[in-house]
Amino acid sequence: MPHEIGEKICGRVEELAAISEDPAKLTRIFLTPEQRRASELVMSWMQAAAMATRLDAIGNVIGRYEGAWPGLPALVLGSHLDTVRDAGKYDGMLGVVTAIACVEALASEGMRLPFAIEVIGFADEEGVRFGTTMLGSRAVAGTFDPDCLGRRDADGFSMAEALRTFGLDPGGIAAAARRRTDILAYVELHIEQGPVLETLGLPVGFVTSISGANRVEVTITGEAGHAGTVPMAERKDALTAAAQCVLAVESRCRAEPDCVGTVGSLQVSPGAINVIPGQVRFSIDLRAAEDARRRRVTAQLLAEIAAVAADRKLRAESRVIHELAAAPCVPWLVAQVERAILAEGIAPFGLSSGAGHDGMAMMEIADIGMIFVRCARGISHHPDESVTVEDAEIGARVLLCFIKDFEPKGAL
Amino acid sequence: MPHEIGEKICGRVEELAAISEDPAKLTRIFLTPEQRRASELVMSWMQAAAMATRLDAIGNVIGRYEGAWPGLPALVLGSHLDTVRDAGKYDGMLGVVTAIACVEALASEGMRLPFAIEVIGFADEEGVRFGTTMLGSRAVAGTFDPDCLGRRDADGFSMAEALRTFGLDPGGIAAAARRRTDILAYVELHIEQGPVLETLGLPVGFVTSISGANRVEVTITGEAGHAGTVPMAERKDALTAAAQCVLAVESRCRAEPDCVGTVGSLQVSPGAINVIPGQVRFSIDLRAAEDARRRRVTAQLLAEIAAVAADRKLRAESRVIHELAAAPCVPWLVAQVERAILAEGIAPFGLSSGAGHDGMAMMEIADIGMIFVRCARGISHHPDESVTVEDAEIGARVLLCFIKDFEPKGAL
Repeated sequence: MPHEIGEKICGRVEELAAISEDPAKLTRIFLTPEQRRASELVMSWMQAAAMATRLDAIGNVIGRYEGAWPGLPALVLGSHLDTVRDAGKYDGMLGVVTAIACVEALASEGMRLPFAIEVIGFADEEGVRFGTTMLGSRAVAGTFDPDCLGRRDADGFSMAEALRTFGLDPGGIAAAARRRTDILAYVELHIEQGPVLETLGLPVGFVTSISGANRVEVTITGEAGHAGTVPMAERKDALTAAAQCVLAVESRCRAEPDCVGTVGSLQVSPGAINVIPGQVRFSIDLRAAEDARRRRVTAQLLAEIAAVAADRKLRAESRVIHELAAAPCVPWLVAQVERAILAEGIAPFGLSSGAGHDGMAMMEIADIGMIFVRCARGISHHPDESVTVEDAEIGARVLLCFIKDFEPKGAL
Repeated sequence: MPHEIGEKICGRVEELAAISEDPAKLTRIFLTPEQRRASELVMSWMQAAAMATRLDAIGNVIGRYEGAWPGLPALVLGSHLDTVRDAGKYDGMLGVVTAIACVEALASEGMRLPFAIEVIGFADEEGVRFGTTMLGSRAVAGTFDPDCLGRRDADGFSMAEALRTFGLDPGGIAAAARRRTDILAYVELHIEQGPVLETLGLPVGFVTSISGANRVEVTITGEAGHAGTVPMAERKDALTAAAQCVLAVESRCRAEPDCVGTVGSLQVSPGAINVIPGQVRFSIDLRAAEDARRRRVTAQLLAEIAAVAADRKLRAESRVIHELAAAPCVPWLVAQVERAILAEGIAPFGLSSGAGHDGMAMMEIADIGMIFVRCARGISHHPDESVTVEDAEIGARVLLCFIKDFEPKGAL
C-alpha cells in the first residue's frame, strides 16, 4: 500500500527542518528570520491547498479553507512551528503539515463542508526565546499577557522590539484574539512524545486530557557531620531523608492512574565524600490528567515529606512554585476522534498527555481534542525524535476522516 | 576544684591557635612560616618541661624526657600541629599540649621513670598542602614514600622545594625513621570529633580501634526522559535507583556495630526539573573498626546496588577507589588506658575512631593506644570545635596516670 500522504507529510517535515539557525541541528526560535522563512513555506503549502493565508499580530500563520459558503464558523486545526534548541523535526510541525495535507485532500476532491477549516501554525509554543510558553495560542485565545512584551531575550531585546523587527505591531496583539462563536472546536494532531503507543503497538491514539502540573521545591535540612565519627543512630543526614522522599514520589505516582511524578533535580550540600549531607534541595514535577488527583497526590506527598523529616528530626520546607490546571479534552470531541480512529481499523486507545500543548491555551475559547501519533522510543526534544511514513499516513487519514465526519457540538 | 592543668592546656591551645596564615580563622599548613612559629613555641614549652628538643627531617617537633638513665627506650606520646583550613583549635594540638603538660608535671615532681618519654608534634597529618596525609608520622614510622617529594602544592611548589625553603633536607627524611626497639608504645590523646562521649556524659574514653575505610564510586545509568510523557512503569530513572542505594547504605550500616556508611556526594544528570534522571553518580564512604566487617559490608552493598539496578533494568558500575585497613589499639595498652580512666573515677568506655589518626602510621613500628576527650556536639574541622577546661584537665590527669603506671609490654 503506497503512503502518498505520509510521504508528502514527511517530505514537508524535512523541508521545515532544514530551516534552522544552525545548519548542524534544528533550532527555530520565535520572531527570527528562520520563523519568517518557515512561515512563508507553510503559507505556500496552504495556498496550494486552496486556503487563504495571513500572519496575525503575534506571527501565527493562519490558513482558512472556507466551507459551503464564506464566513462560517471554523473547525480549527493546528500546532506550533517553533522548536526547542537542537530539536526533533516532528514536535509541532507534524500537526501543522498533516492538517494542511488533509485540507489539500478535501480541496482536490472539491469538497466543501458545512463549516470552515482553519489551520494555525503557532509562532511560539516552546517559549525558548522569552521563557514563557504558548505565546501564539494565548494571543489567539485572548489570554496573551501584555506585560510579556517587556520580557527580554538573552541578547537583551524585548519582545516588543522583536515583534517590530519582524514587522509586527505589538499594539495589535489584542486584535489577534478570536471569538468563541467563530470556533467550533480546536483539534491538534501531535507526536505522543512518550512511549505508550509504541509499547501497545498502536500508530495513533486519542487524548483524554492534557495533564495539569505542579512543581514543588523541597529543602531538607539536617546536620552536616564527619562521615567517620558520627554513629549511624545520631546522624541527621539530609540525603537519606531525601532518598525516602524520592521513593515516596515514585511509589505514590505508581499507585495512581494517569499520574507521573519526577524528582529531576537534586543537590547535596556540602557534597563532600567524607561529610554527612547537611542539606539537600530537590524538585518534584507532578502531573495528572485530573486536577483533583494531582492536588490530592501533591498534598499527600507534602505530608509524607514532612513526616519523613519529623521522623528523622530534620527540617523540611516545601514550596509549590508552579501550578497549571489540566486541559481536559471534551467528551463530544473525543468521541468523534475515537470514531475516526476506529474507522481506520485501529483500536481506539485513550491516553493523557503529560506534556503541555497549545490546547491548554485554546481551551479558553474552544472545546479541544487531540490525536497522538506514535513516535520512536518516546524520544522528543532531541534530534532522534522520529515518526514513520506509515504512521504519518495513518495520522493524516484519521484526521481527514475526523474532519469529514465532524459534527459541531450543537449539531449532535 | 581548680583546674590548673586544664587552664594551662587550654591557654596554650589558644596561643597555638593564634598562629595562623589568616588572622580571621585558624589555618596552619605544612612547611609554612606558621609551622615554624608553632614549632618554636611548642619547643619552648617542651624545654620548660625539662625536655631536649629537636626538629626531624620532615619538620616534626620532638621533645625527649629521659628516664631513670639516658638512652632508655621511649613511650612516645603525640599528635599533630598542622590544621585543616578554617580549623578548630583542639584537633591535634590538644594531644601535643596535654602530653607536654604531663611531662611538665613529672619534671616538677622530679620524677624519672624506667623509660624515656618522647612527645612528638607531627608536622603534617591533615595533608592539606600536598593532598597526602600523615606525612609526619609516616616519616617516623619509616613508611614515607619518597615519590611524595615530587608532589606539588596549589602554587606549584614541590614538597622537596618546600622542605628546602623551610631549611630541611629532603634527602634526610629516611633518617627520621625510628626503630621499633626504641619505642615501647605510641599513645595519642585526641578529641573524639564525634558525639558519642557527650551523649554518654563521659569526659574521656579509650579507643579500641581506628576504623578502616573504603571509598566506593557508583554510577547508575538509566534513561533520561520527559517528566510528563513517560509513564511510571516504563521509566528507567537513575535517581530512584540511587535513592534505594542510599537507603541500603544507611540500613546496612545501622545494623552493624562499629560501622558507619555515608553517601556524601551525589550528582544527578541531566538535573533538570522536568527530565527523568538518566544518570546518577554517588560516593560511599564506609568505615568499620574491624576490617573483616568492612569488607563484608562493602561486598554486600555492592551486591545490593547491582541487584537494585538489575531489578530496574538499569546499569550500575561500582569502583572501590580507596581502601585503608583498620588500626586496632592493642589489648595490653588498651587495658592500661582503661585502668587510668578508672583510676580517675570515670567509667571506662571504649569506642572506635571513625576518623584517621597518626596511630595508623605509627602502628608500623609500635603498638598503639588512644585516649579520646569529649568535644562539644561532635563538631570538628570547624571553628566551633570546643573542649571544656574541665575535660582538658581530666584528659591530662588520665594521661598522667597512664604514664606513671605504664608498664612496657615485656614487663607484664
